[in-house]
Amino acid sequence: MSNYFTLKWLPEGKLHLLDQRSLPLRLSYLDYDSPEGVAEAIRSMVVRGAPAIGVAAAYGLALAAYHTTETDMDKFLHQLQRAGEVLIAARPTAVNLSWAINRVLKKVMAYKEEPVSQLKVRVLAEAQEMEREDIATNKRMSENALPLIPQKVTFLHHCNTGALATVAYGTALGVIRAAHEHGRQVFVYVDETRPRLQGARLTAWELKQLGIPHALIVDGASGYILKNKGVNLVTVGCDRIAANGDTANKVGTYTLALAARAHQVPFYVVGPTSTIDLNTPTGEQIPIEERSAEEILWVGKTQIAPGDTPVCNPAFDITPAELITAIITERGIIYPPYTENISKIISQKG
Amino acid sequence: MSNYFTLKWLPEGKLHLLDQRSLPLRLSYLDYDSPEGVAEAIRSMVVRGAPAIGVAAAYGLALAAYHTTETDMDKFLHQLQRAGEVLIAARPTAVNLSWAINRVLKKVMAYKEEPVSQLKVRVLAEAQEMEREDIATNKRMSENALPLIPQKVTFLHHCNTGALATVAYGTALGVIRAAHEHGRQVFVYVDETRPRLQGARLTAWELKQLGIPHALIVDGASGYILKNKGVNLVTVGCDRIAANGDTANKVGTYTLALAARAHQVPFYVVGPTSTIDLNTPTGEQIPIEERSAEEILWVGKTQIAPGDTPVCNPAFDITPAELITAIITERGIIYPPYTENISKIISQKG
Repeated sequence: MSNYFTLKWLPEGKLHLLDQRSLPLRLSYLDYDSPEGVAEAIRSMVVRGAPAIGVAAAYGLALAAYHTTETDMDKFLHQLQRAGEVLIAARPTAVNLSWAINRVLKKVMAYKEEPVSQLKVRVLAEAQEMEREDIATNKRMSENALPLIPQKVTFLHHCNTGALATVAYGTALGVIRAAHEHGRQVFVYVDETRPRLQGARLTAWELKQLGIPHALIVDGASGYILKNKGVNLVTVGCDRIAANGDTANKVGTYTLALAARAHQVPFYVVGPTSTIDLNTPTGEQIPIEERSAEEILWVGKTQIAPGDTPVCNPAFDITPAELITAIITERGIIYPPYTENISKIISQKG
Repeated sequence: MSNYFTLKWLPEGKLHLLDQRSLPLRLSYLDYDSPEGVAEAIRSMVVRGAPAIGVAAAYGLALAAYHTTETDMDKFLHQLQRAGEVLIAARPTAVNLSWAINRVLKKVMAYKEEPVSQLKVRVLAEAQEMEREDIATNKRMSENALPLIPQKVTFLHHCNTGALATVAYGTALGVIRAAHEHGRQVFVYVDETRPRLQGARLTAWELKQLGIPHALIVDGASGYILKNKGVNLVTVGCDRIAANGDTANKVGTYTLALAARAHQVPFYVVGPTSTIDLNTPTGEQIPIEERSAEEILWVGKTQIAPGDTPVCNPAFDITPAELITAIITERGIIYPPYTENISKIISQKG
């Protein structure tokens, strides 16, 4: 499909991760053999993107299971539990982390009458199943979106939601890719997405690989672009969708949603139903991760402000449900009223 | 007042400019002895900020006058005219450039019965007068704003509008400074202002010199900050105000104005009346400068996207009058309806 991949399980019991921090200048990979290592890779954004960190976390559990010498069931389960906690703590906002860990642990508990050696295989098998599912899910949601997309279409896209944010194909960028593959005439305005520049470093790079015409803009230019450049739709990913449709996503999403609303441009959130968290009633209850000052004060080796400048660096923001035209998932498109329609789609058999 | 200055005329016929491109890491100055040199300094943003480039351009004419050996009046006037065109062409959006040039040329024409040697003195004197006026104007507009500012106040500020954007003191940042000097309890959220990072490099640096508490944010976080951080007012500068109040300012201003409106936070434009251009009926007629791709693709020595990434880099955007709560000038505060009230304030004796 392409000459790079976000993650790969190696048969010798290692997780091979594309180091996304060094893109677009270098395509390099790092190997991990412990859940603590994977947690650190998630924290430091070697791997990022809600779906990708979910699957990486599942493989973090697989590493714990693979390498343990423990044969006592209780102790084995305790080790897995502990590894799960370490992985969930890596980043607080995206719900896919805890969703993935809980899914694997539930599978293990369902088979805990089996010997430990057998459970070890089941942990890995579940992670591998999630890896396969992620690709199928992304393709399905991308195809579900096609009826929304005109023949000649200009997108405005925030952050990175492509193959790199997932196992492969992508969510919001998957929609753009599907439109391109289905013969739509696509143009994409890519905002650079400060502070980590996922738009500039990753999305522009992916669009180039895919041969999709695009232009990079600064985040502040979104109002100008929406006003003057005939944007048909804004597409973003998501890190957690509350039961009422409020959506946490990369900082800048909310500002962009306000600008889209002012120009009556449809604003679509794209993500798997695993990103919906019915235990979070509204956006108010979603924890917002604060990241370091250095992330803003330095771009690569370049210092952009006095070194002791105080910084406010929320990694995410909340877009209220009323600014979201629809939520595009692998099970179909969810329209308002969200509380009702989210609950309906989740209670469907997956 | 402070240990740095934006520009200074040197008696040997040179213009000494603070090289703002190297801030905050180095405080260094460059000398210019020709209008072409000053035009290049304006284009490359050694000096920037609408009021500052106005005064720098006036000194550009002073350099032409100072260094010419021409004694024939017609040829002298032609040289000045030519220098003025070169300077005006340096940046198309800010009207202060042409305002400054036209003011100096008008003065010269008024005295063209005098000998060339005398006119040379008048050109320099007019530039020096504009330098003095700029400081007085900034202090006056800053004091005019005081009644709008509560005792405990949180600002959100875009770009740089401080001493560095002017001869001294500043426009929108002058308002913040005046509030601080008048005992208000001030906090400022400074957005970094991509692509040139004037907020991070210049405003954070100035606020530090002034001892005013602040925090740096990325531009995309403005929605989050307006929603969650109790911002009382947004203040921005301006590069051209049309007759109907539509305002051109650094890209990102319009996006910020939309976010401020959504949160019902007052949005103030601060600038001298020389920034008002009655010859431009609305924002539609203001030319928007497009700058290079490199400005976005590189931050210092760090490349942030594939080198051949197509870029859309408008340096400014237009904020429509209806998003502007008031325009703060040295002659007073202008409220809507702008067409009427702008015309009224301009026809007052200055």
